Amino acid sequence: MFEAAEVGHKLSKGQYKRIEPRLRADLLDAQYDLYKNGRFPVILLISGVRGAGKGETVNLLNEWMDPRHIHTHAFDDPSDEECERPPMWRFWRALPPKGRIGILFGSWYTAPIIDRVFKRTRSSDLVRSIEEINHFERMLADEGALILKFWFHLAKNRQKKRLKALESDPETRWRITKRDWDFFKVYDRFYRISEDTLRQTSTADAPWIMVEGSDPEYRAVTVGKTLLEAMRKRLQAPSGRAETKNRTAPIVRPVDKLHILRKMDLGLKLDKKRYEARLEQLQRRLALATRHPRFREHNVVCLFEGMDAAGKGGAIRRITAALDARLYHTIPIAAPTDEERAQPYLWRFWRHLPRKRRFTLYDRSWYGRVLVERIEGFCSEADWMRAYAEINDFEEQLARNGAVIAKYWLQISKEEQYRRFKEREKTRFKRFKITPEDWRNREKWDAYQLAAADMIERTSTAHAPWVLVEANDKYHARVKILAALVRAIESALAAR
Amino acid sequence: MFEAAEVGHKLSKGQYKRIEPRLRADLLDAQYDLYKNGRFPVILLISGVRGAGKGETVNLLNEWMDPRHIHTHAFDDPSDEECERPPMWRFWRALPPKGRIGILFGSWYTAPIIDRVFKRTRSSDLVRSIEEINHFERMLADEGALILKFWFHLAKNRQKKRLKALESDPETRWRITKRDWDFFKVYDRFYRISEDTLRQTSTADAPWIMVEGSDPEYRAVTVGKTLLEAMRKRLQAPSGRAETKNRTAPIVRPVDKLHILRKMDLGLKLDKKRYEARLEQLQRRLALATRHPRFREHNVVCLFEGMDAAGKGGAIRRITAALDARLYHTIPIAAPTDEERAQPYLWRFWRHLPRKRRFTLYDRSWYGRVLVERIEGFCSEADWMRAYAEINDFEEQLARNGAVIAKYWLQISKEEQYRRFKEREKTRFKRFKITPEDWRNREKWDAYQLAAADMIERTSTAHAPWVLVEANDKYHARVKILAALVRAIESALAAR
Repeated sequence: MFEAAEVGHKLSKGQYKRIEPRLRADLLDAQYDLYKNGRFPVILLISGVRGAGKGETVNLLNEWMDPRHIHTHAFDDPSDEECERPPMWRFWRALPPKGRIGILFGSWYTAPIIDRVFKRTRSSDLVRSIEEINHFERMLADEGALILKFWFHLAKNRQKKRLKALESDPETRWRITKRDWDFFKVYDRFYRISEDTLRQTSTADAPWIMVEGSDPEYRAVTVGKTLLEAMRKRLQAPSGRAETKNRTAPIVRPVDKLHILRKMDLGLKLDKKRYEARLEQLQRRLALATRHPRFREHNVVCLFEGMDAAGKGGAIRRITAALDARLYHTIPIAAPTDEERAQPYLWRFWRHLPRKRRFTLYDRSWYGRVLVERIEGFCSEADWMRAYAEINDFEEQLARNGAVIAKYWLQISKEEQYRRFKEREKTRFKRFKITPEDWRNREKWDAYQLAAADMIERTSTAHAPWVLVEANDKYHARVKILAALVRAIESALAAR
Repeated sequence: MFEAAEVGHKLSKGQYKRIEPRLRADLLDAQYDLYKNGRFPVILLISGVRGAGKGETVNLLNEWMDPRHIHTHAFDDPSDEECERPPMWRFWRALPPKGRIGILFGSWYTAPIIDRVFKRTRSSDLVRSIEEINHFERMLADEGALILKFWFHLAKNRQKKRLKALESDPETRWRITKRDWDFFKVYDRFYRISEDTLRQTSTADAPWIMVEGSDPEYRAVTVGKTLLEAMRKRLQAPSGRAETKNRTAPIVRPVDKLHILRKMDLGLKLDKKRYEARLEQLQRRLALATRHPRFREHNVVCLFEGMDAAGKGGAIRRITAALDARLYHTIPIAAPTDEERAQPYLWRFWRHLPRKRRFTLYDRSWYGRVLVERIEGFCSEADWMRAYAEINDFEEQLARNGAVIAKYWLQISKEEQYRRFKEREKTRFKRFKITPEDWRNREKWDAYQLAAADMIERTSTAHAPWVLVEANDKYHARVKILAALVRAIESALAAR
């Protein structure tokens, strides 16, 4: 793969002088069109060996185009806020919104490759990372992002020459550190591992583009032209967006219409006295668990889904009652803000992930994609179909980072919902008032039930199982919810 | 001030049982009204001595109301991302949006009081902090926030008893640390300093409310009722917003209509050859300065204002050309997003403040308030009049935190603007295309000039002076801009 970038590509100064003004003007126009179009972001990854002109090229791109609509992010050591979230959090934070160009200097490739080069991880870890990266980039592409990954390469002897040259010039000496030479020592291993990684991550959605780094003019024009052509092509595409492919197996409906939610025993009940005793006991255990020294290594992500009036709010309050208010945030999921709409779907959930020792409770969640958005047609079938896999990837990252994940589906009967709606119409609490929309959603009861059954089937995983809650009786429901949470946290604390 | 909170206030369990259900229902309704109204945020500060029930009360508020619309933030040690910005940055980050309740546990009072108690600062520092806090809270109030500051107090002997009680109960022992006793040792000094601080910061906009912390029922009802009444009162106010007072001296216009911009010599010019030599020299000095070891203690905030086509974009690009793209962000100021509109005016500028060693270049800036917003009537006279003082406060905080601030007004003549508009109409760069709005703005030329002159007069300070740039000649303008920036950074590096 790298051989093509060791042939000594070159562009004469004369050629460069002829090409550059036109390229620059075209890039500016394309950037302006992208901004006006506003329907997709452009994500440039800048990776490769040291001394291959990555920095110079990025500076040049900023010079050629309008730096006001380019977001350049360099990823050095993560900040402490970043360290307490899954590794991908810092990249989600840095994603450019639609209509802008984001240049990521260092990326989600850096740690997996470097850790493997210096043998901090095993080869199976790298395999897993590669799979995750492929999933992530496919998601970005499906969300419409134009992704271009540039790899700046230098043959070994050229890299040595380049580092020496930089080191001997008093103007550039500061740029070369011991770290550069440490990297040079493992050049062969780095070559092997990165070539392997690149080969497995060069996809149609997000191809790798090799850039031979020794000639400044050649590399600049290569990157500039590639970017220009990719932007133009996308801008001319009819939808201004890549074709989203439906990559998931189709949903096959059992002919007898029996599904998991129909098997639930909604007659389950708890009397008030036993409820109060159990509640107190469980809240106490929850409070205790959050003070356990090992709880520092964890955080908790809870989410609640269910039909209107299923009792989500009440259940959340029985959990928060046991927690110090300083340790949790409750996030009600309503319509996205315009900043959220300019990002991939999961972005607005990533941004609220808790630090260690904290709770985030989502009142409705990313599952909206396969529930309300599916049923109301707010997204295409391809979009909600791919969401199952994307959600599983997301939750797996959370779990691997130490999150305890508790997902609740609160199931009530259609009759019970009717009773609650009628009751709410009489109540003096304004926040409980029933809106016409609530009645409308009720008409789609069966569609929601089927969608929920699909969702549960496709996203109940070992690290993030769904807890199905029989919620006709609130006492039973709340105790079941709290008990599942306490057990999940306690077992996380007991692990290792 | 604290005496009133040492009289042994009490509420019997019976009284509490009668009051609580009603209070709770009313609070929920008021919270719902606030959310629907969506026109102002409620900010609760929770401060006071240890063991006075602050945590319990906040938990109770979250239990009484809907925790989904309450944002509770506790401020422990700042994160590294917070440490690299002015101290107020972390509080700006945590401000609740309009329609929500924010509970701040620990606040902008904590550090000034504690630092003074443990003699890490001088009394003059505290005086300055108090003044800053008063300015900040006045700004919040003027922006419409409802601010309630609760101080939880315990008489010395009661605090001692309370700490001992907590310590001897195995259930609560974990809550008491050596730090609590260290604080108790300086009780008298803490009492004196905090009483003094409170007295000077209890304003009509943001009053302190004393809460005697020994009786749980009393303190809960006190906080609940105070919050309820304040929310109701504000919700019933005709504008749903506090009266904004015009607190600045009126602008007196000289009868001869002479102002500072008229005195500028727009004939200043530089020929191309000298321009190129100077530019290269200055860009080199800028690049060098950013690599100086002491630059680690600084960051750079540049902003550009001027009429359309004054050359702001071009000037910005001559600066960024000297910088590593990893070190700067350019922020073009356009219409605010809806998340930004739900916050005080300056919020959208605070969020982009650079970390140490970084640059943020604002293409248009917070001065929009006293330029376009003033002239187009996007805000009231009271709003833009108070902006002068608020901006000065903001920039002073930046400067004190080590920021180098460079503010440029690019002045062109009306004829030169016409020439550039006409030229742009012919250019092939789409981003330079002239819109009808550009021509409309041009009609208000004199109004803009007067507003700019007022702005410069009122906001040119020692730590953040305006640089007036004669911009009819682009070469002269760019060199002047770069030279001023380089000088400002070099002199910051030379200081101390």
